[in-house]
Amino acid sequence: MLDRLFSPESIAVIGASKTVGKVGYDTVSNLVKSGFPGPIAPVNSAGGELFGLKVYPTIADYPHPVDLVVIAVPAEMVPAAAREAVKKKAGAIVVVASGFKETGPHGRKLEEELTEICRRGGVRLLGPNCLGIINTAIKLNASFSKRIPQRGHLAIFSQSGALCTAMMDIADERELGVSKSISIGNKADITEVDVLAALAQDDETKVIVGYLEDISDGDKFVKAAQEASSRKPVVILKAGTTVAGTKAAANHTGVLAGKDTAYGAAFKRAGICRADSFEALFDYATALALQPTPRGDRVLVITNSGGSGTMAADAVEKSGLSVTRLSDSLVARLRAELPPAAFIDNPIDISADAEPRHYAAAIDSAVADDSIDAILVVLAPQYMTQPAATVRAIVAHMDETTPVLASFLGGSDVMPSRKELAAAGLPFYDSPERAVGALKAMHEYGEWKRRPARHVVRFPVNRRRVERIITRRQRTGRLRLGEVKSKDILKAYGFRIMEGRLTTSLEEAVEIARFIGFPVAMKIVSPSIVHKSDLGGVRLNIGSSQEVADAFDLMMLRINKHAPNAIVEGVYVEKMAEKGLEVIIGMTRDPQFGPMLMFGLGGIFVEVMKDVTFHLAPITENEAIQMLKSTRSYELLEGKRGLKEVDISAIAVSLQRISQLTTDFPQIVELDINPLIVGEIGNEPVVADARMTFARPLAGL
Amino acid sequence: MLDRLFSPESIAVIGASKTVGKVGYDTVSNLVKSGFPGPIAPVNSAGGELFGLKVYPTIADYPHPVDLVVIAVPAEMVPAAAREAVKKKAGAIVVVASGFKETGPHGRKLEEELTEICRRGGVRLLGPNCLGIINTAIKLNASFSKRIPQRGHLAIFSQSGALCTAMMDIADERELGVSKSISIGNKADITEVDVLAALAQDDETKVIVGYLEDISDGDKFVKAAQEASSRKPVVILKAGTTVAGTKAAANHTGVLAGKDTAYGAAFKRAGICRADSFEALFDYATALALQPTPRGDRVLVITNSGGSGTMAADAVEKSGLSVTRLSDSLVARLRAELPPAAFIDNPIDISADAEPRHYAAAIDSAVADDSIDAILVVLAPQYMTQPAATVRAIVAHMDETTPVLASFLGGSDVMPSRKELAAAGLPFYDSPERAVGALKAMHEYGEWKRRPARHVVRFPVNRRRVERIITRRQRTGRLRLGEVKSKDILKAYGFRIMEGRLTTSLEEAVEIARFIGFPVAMKIVSPSIVHKSDLGGVRLNIGSSQEVADAFDLMMLRINKHAPNAIVEGVYVEKMAEKGLEVIIGMTRDPQFGPMLMFGLGGIFVEVMKDVTFHLAPITENEAIQMLKSTRSYELLEGKRGLKEVDISAIAVSLQRISQLTTDFPQIVELDINPLIVGEIGNEPVVADARMTFARPLAGL
Repeated sequence: MLDRLFSPESIAVIGASKTVGKVGYDTVSNLVKSGFPGPIAPVNSAGGELFGLKVYPTIADYPHPVDLVVIAVPAEMVPAAAREAVKKKAGAIVVVASGFKETGPHGRKLEEELTEICRRGGVRLLGPNCLGIINTAIKLNASFSKRIPQRGHLAIFSQSGALCTAMMDIADERELGVSKSISIGNKADITEVDVLAALAQDDETKVIVGYLEDISDGDKFVKAAQEASSRKPVVILKAGTTVAGTKAAANHTGVLAGKDTAYGAAFKRAGICRADSFEALFDYATALALQPTPRGDRVLVITNSGGSGTMAADAVEKSGLSVTRLSDSLVARLRAELPPAAFIDNPIDISADAEPRHYAAAIDSAVADDSIDAILVVLAPQYMTQPAATVRAIVAHMDETTPVLASFLGGSDVMPSRKELAAAGLPFYDSPERAVGALKAMHEYGEWKRRPARHVVRFPVNRRRVERIITRRQRTGRLRLGEVKSKDILKAYGFRIMEGRLTTSLEEAVEIARFIGFPVAMKIVSPSIVHKSDLGGVRLNIGSSQEVADAFDLMMLRINKHAPNAIVEGVYVEKMAEKGLEVIIGMTRDPQFGPMLMFGLGGIFVEVMKDVTFHLAPITENEAIQMLKSTRSYELLEGKRGLKEVDISAIAVSLQRISQLTTDFPQIVELDINPLIVGEIGNEPVVADARMTFARPLAGL
Repeated sequence: MLDRLFSPESIAVIGASKTVGKVGYDTVSNLVKSGFPGPIAPVNSAGGELFGLKVYPTIADYPHPVDLVVIAVPAEMVPAAAREAVKKKAGAIVVVASGFKETGPHGRKLEEELTEICRRGGVRLLGPNCLGIINTAIKLNASFSKRIPQRGHLAIFSQSGALCTAMMDIADERELGVSKSISIGNKADITEVDVLAALAQDDETKVIVGYLEDISDGDKFVKAAQEASSRKPVVILKAGTTVAGTKAAANHTGVLAGKDTAYGAAFKRAGICRADSFEALFDYATALALQPTPRGDRVLVITNSGGSGTMAADAVEKSGLSVTRLSDSLVARLRAELPPAAFIDNPIDISADAEPRHYAAAIDSAVADDSIDAILVVLAPQYMTQPAATVRAIVAHMDETTPVLASFLGGSDVMPSRKELAAAGLPFYDSPERAVGALKAMHEYGEWKRRPARHVVRFPVNRRRVERIITRRQRTGRLRLGEVKSKDILKAYGFRIMEGRLTTSLEEAVEIARFIGFPVAMKIVSPSIVHKSDLGGVRLNIGSSQEVADAFDLMMLRINKHAPNAIVEGVYVEKMAEKGLEVIIGMTRDPQFGPMLMFGLGGIFVEVMKDVTFHLAPITENEAIQMLKSTRSYELLEGKRGLKEVDISAIAVSLQRISQLTTDFPQIVELDINPLIVGEIGNEPVVADARMTFARPLAGL
C-alpha cells in the first residue's frame, strides 16, 4: 500500500544543501550515513557534489525513476517542489518543514494546496511538519533523526516528531529493535489509518507502538486498528485525554460522556492495548514482543524474598488478575525440587538461598501445569543471588505458551545488562507493579483475541415511519423531540409505550382516560418547557375522571401563571406503567466514532454517582449484557438488597434496539430514555419518558 | 536513643570466622572493608587473627568496653552469645541469623528467650533475621550487604532484608546518598517506632524511606511517625494491602472497612507519604530530598514539544493538581523572553528550537510569579536539543521556594548522566506521569504540614451511665447490644433519641403510644432476631390505638410462628422521627490503630455503592467535615438534586460525639448508627436505629 514510501528503490532530496545545520544537509547526510543501498539524488539548482553524490539542478535532470522524494525546503517553496516530484512520477513525498496548518490560516491554505497537488498527481504524502520515515530493514533513514535505531520487530508511529525520536531512543535503550518508524506530522494525506493498515501487512513488524493526539476518521480507524490487532498487538498512547471538551450537550447521555469516553470505547472495540503513560507504551510492547499471550488471568509469582513476593501479589490482586492457588500436584512437584526452607504457596518464596537451578525447576513445573497462565519472577538481591545466571536459567526453561516476566529489584550491581536480557528474550521491569501492568495488558489483548464472533441482531422495525418523522422535523427545523414524538419513534423500533393520546380539551382528556383505563398519567406537552415537573406539568397515578379534570385545570392555570408565553401543544394522557426498576438508556453521537450507547440505573445512580457505562454501536447481545454488568450497581438488577430480579435480557434487547435505531439514522445525535421501567422476567420494559435531538439537515436537503 | 547502635565507638563480632562464605567471615569482612575507624573485636574460641585483627576466645577476654555486638552464630547458639554480650555491658546487639519466630513454635520460643535476655540486660536488640545496620557517616557496615552505599541524607529502614539491599542499590543507582540503613527483621525489640523516633532526631537524615509489612503498635507508630513527619518527609511502602483479612465483623462498619483502610487512615493522620509501588518510594524520596515543598497545587509545565506538554498536562489533571492559567504579567514577561514560535500558555511550549537560555528565562519568570507553585520541565529530544546544557540552565535558575522536577523523554543519547543530575540537585523521571506522582506526594506533604492545629472538642456527657451499661453487659457476657440499649448509650452521649418505652403487654403498648403521641413506630426487641423487618417485627407510622393493638398482636403471632424459640424482651414503642435524609455513622476498632469512624449516606449508597469514608478517632470538627466532603454523594447533603439542604454541621457533631464515646470506651469494638435521620439546618439529627458490640472483658474483670 505504502510500498514506495516504506521501501523505495531510489530517493531524491529536493533542497539538498551543502550548509551544515540546514535541513537539506542533514537529510542527505542521514540518508547516506544510514547506508541506504539504492541511488540517492540530491537536487539543488547550485549543482555540484554532496557526500560524493552528484547534485542535480532539478529533479527532472535526474535521468532515472524516483520512488521517494524528500522535500527539504521551507514551507513556502514546498508546493512548487511537490509539483516537480509529481511530474517525475514519484510514488511518495515526505515533507519535513513546519509552517503549515499548525501556524494558522495562511499555513492551512498552503497545506491544502500541497495536499491537492499530491492527490491529483496520485502521489502519497507523509507530513508536512514531520520527522520523516525510517525503515531499518533496507537501511532507510529519510528523517531528521540523527540515529537509525537497531533493526528489529517493533514499528513506531507518532503524531509528534519529538516523541517519535524519544520512542526510537527508548527502543534502543531497551534493546528492542525497530522495524519502521513513521512520523505522521500534520497528517495531510497519510494518517494513522494508512499506517496501521500498512503495518498490519508488514512481515518485519511484530508489535505496533503509536502516539496519537487525535484521530482523523473514527470509523476507518476502528476498522484498520481491528484488522491490525487481529494480526499483531497494537499499543497506543492517546494524549489530550483530560481537558474537558466544549461540546454543548442537550441530553443526559451527552453530558455524562467525557471527551475520552469515545476513545476508550473505540480502543476497546479495536483490541488496542491502551497505554496510560509514556512508560507503559514500552512496558507493554516489550512483553508483547517477547512473550506469548497468556491463556487466562492466573498468575504465579516466584521470588527469593517474602517482601518482594508480597509486593508482587499486591500488584497482581490490585490489577484484577488472579494470584491463583497452586494445584496439589504442582505443590508436590515443587516440594521435591525446591530447598526445604522454601515456602511453597503463591507467591513461591524459594528463600534467600535460591539458586538459578531452583528458579529453573519452579518454572519447569509451572509451565507444565494447566492451572498457571503467566509467571512473574521477582528477585531481590540477597547475599547468594546470581542475577545473570538466574536469567539464563529462567530463559532456558520458558515455553511457547506461558509468558514469563521478570522484575529484579535493585541497582546495577544486581541487574544483568539490558543487552543480556533483551538477547535472552525476557521482559524486564524495574518494579513488580510495572511488570503486572504489562501482564494485565497482555491478558486483555488475549481476551480480545479470544472474543466470540460478533453477531449483531437486526430486529424487524418500521423504518419508514421514523424516516418520515425525521425528514419532517429536519425540514421544519424543530430538532428537539419531546416525549410524545420520541415515543412514536421508539414504538416504531419495537419499544413498549403505554397507550396514550394528546389533547387540548378537558372533556377529551377525561374521555381518553376513561377509554384507556385508570390509573393514568398526565403531562404537559410543550416545546418551550424543559423541566415540566417543576411547573407542575406532570401528574401521575390519576385514578378518576374528577381527578383528570382537576389536573387539567390546574396544569393550565400554573402554565398561564408561570410561563405565560409558553407554546403548549396540549396535555398527554397516558396509561400508568406498572411499577418496576428505573434505568436509563441513552445515545450520544461522537463526532469521530459515531453512536455511543449508555446504560445506567436511573435517578441518583446516574445523577450523583455517575454509574454509567458506554459502548460503541452497533452492539451485540453479549456486549449489551457486559454493559449492564460493568455498572457498580449491577447487583440491583439481579434482585439483591430486597429488590426483585428484573429482566436483564429485556434491557439488553432495548440497548440493541437503540443500537439499531441510531445506526440506521445518523440524523439522531442524542437520545435519552429516562427512565425505562423494567419489570420482572417476562415483562416487557416500558418507556416512561424519552427525548431526542436531530442533527441540523445538510445544506440542500 | 539508639546511639550505641547507630554510632558505636567499638564493635565485637561473636562467631567471627576464617571460612569464606560463612556469615561470621562476611560480617567481619564488611566491617573492616567499610573502614570503620573504631576498634573491632572478632570473637571465636579458636583465637588467632582475622584481617589483621586479634581474635578473642570469648568477648570477656576483650579488655575494652564494647558498644555494639554483632552475633553471627546460628539461631540455637544466639541466646548464649547474647548473655555474654549482656555481661560485657554492650549497648546494642545485632542478630542476623534466621531460624526464629518466622519458622514456627520452636523458633518463636528461641526469639522470646533472646528478647528476654536483652530486656533484662538493658541491651537493645536489632533483629533477629535481619540484614544489620549501616551508618555511612562513621563508615559503619555492620550488615550482610557487600557494599556500603554513598554517604548522603536518605535514611532507609525495612522489614525485609532483601528489600533493604534493593533500596540501598537503588539509592546508589540514583546517586541519592544514604545516611543510615536499618534492617529491622523480626522486630523482637527495636521496631519501626524506635527507628522513626531515632531518625527524626538524626541530623544526617533529611528524608526517611521505609518498607513495612505490619506495624507493631499502631498508636505509638502514629505518634512517632507524626513527630518524624513534622521534622522531615517520611515515605513508606506498606505491602500486604490487598489479601482480605479473615476478621469476623458483626456490624456494617466492620464489613466495609477493608484490611488496608486503617493503614490508609493512620498514614494520612501521621503525614506519611504513602508509596503505592516500589518505584514510587524513590520517585517521591528523590523529589522530597532535592526540592522545596510546593506552597500549593498550581503546576506549570515547560516543554519543547507539543506532544510532551499534552502528556504532562494530562498527568497533572488526572492527579488532581492544577494546570494553572498563566497570569497576564507572566505571559507578557515570557513573550519578551521566548522565541516567537513559542506557545505561551500552560504548558509553555518553547518549540523545537528551545535553547538552554529559554528554559532559564521561563524558570526565572515562573519562580518570580506568585501564581506558580511547582514547575515540571518535560523535554523531548529534537534536533537542536542540548540536554546537559539544559539541565545546567534549569539548575542555575531554581530558587528555594518553587520545586522544579524534570522528565526528559528518550534513551541515553538525550539524557544527561544520573551523576550530573544528582549533583545538580534536579529530580529526574523517566516519564512525566512519574514526575507528577512525585509532585502530588510533595503537595500532600505540604498540605499536611500546613494543616490547622488539631482541636478535639469534648462535649459534656453522662459517662457514668455508659460505664454502668458496659460493665453490666460484660459481666453477663451479653456483648451485642440491640437498638434499645444502644440508644441508651447514645443518649448519654448527647444524641437525640425519640421518646419511647419497652413493654410486654398490649394494653401498655397502647398506653405508651397515647402518652407519647401518634404517629409511633413499634419494633420487636429480641437478642435472638437479627433481621427484625424480615419477620414483620418493625411497623412504622402507626396512627391510632387500634393500629397499635393490631400491630402488637400480629408481631407476636408472626414471631411465634416463624421463630418460636426466640427470646422476646418485648415491643419497643417509640415516637416516629420526622422525615429527613438517612445517613450511617459507624465505628470499627482496628486492632492496630483503634477506633476508626465511618460516614456514608444510608441505604443503597452504603450497601451497593460502598460510598463511605473512614477516619481515625479522635476527630476534629474540620476532619469530620472533610469526611462528609470525601463521599461521592456529598452533593446530596448540600441539597442538590431536588433534596433539601441538611444540617451538615449537625452530622459533624454526631461524628465527634461518636469519636468521644469510642475513645472514652475502648470496650466498644463496633458501633453502627443506621440510620441517623438528618433534617434541615437547626434540626437535631435523630438516631433511628443503632447497634453496638462490646469486647469480651479482660480476664479478672
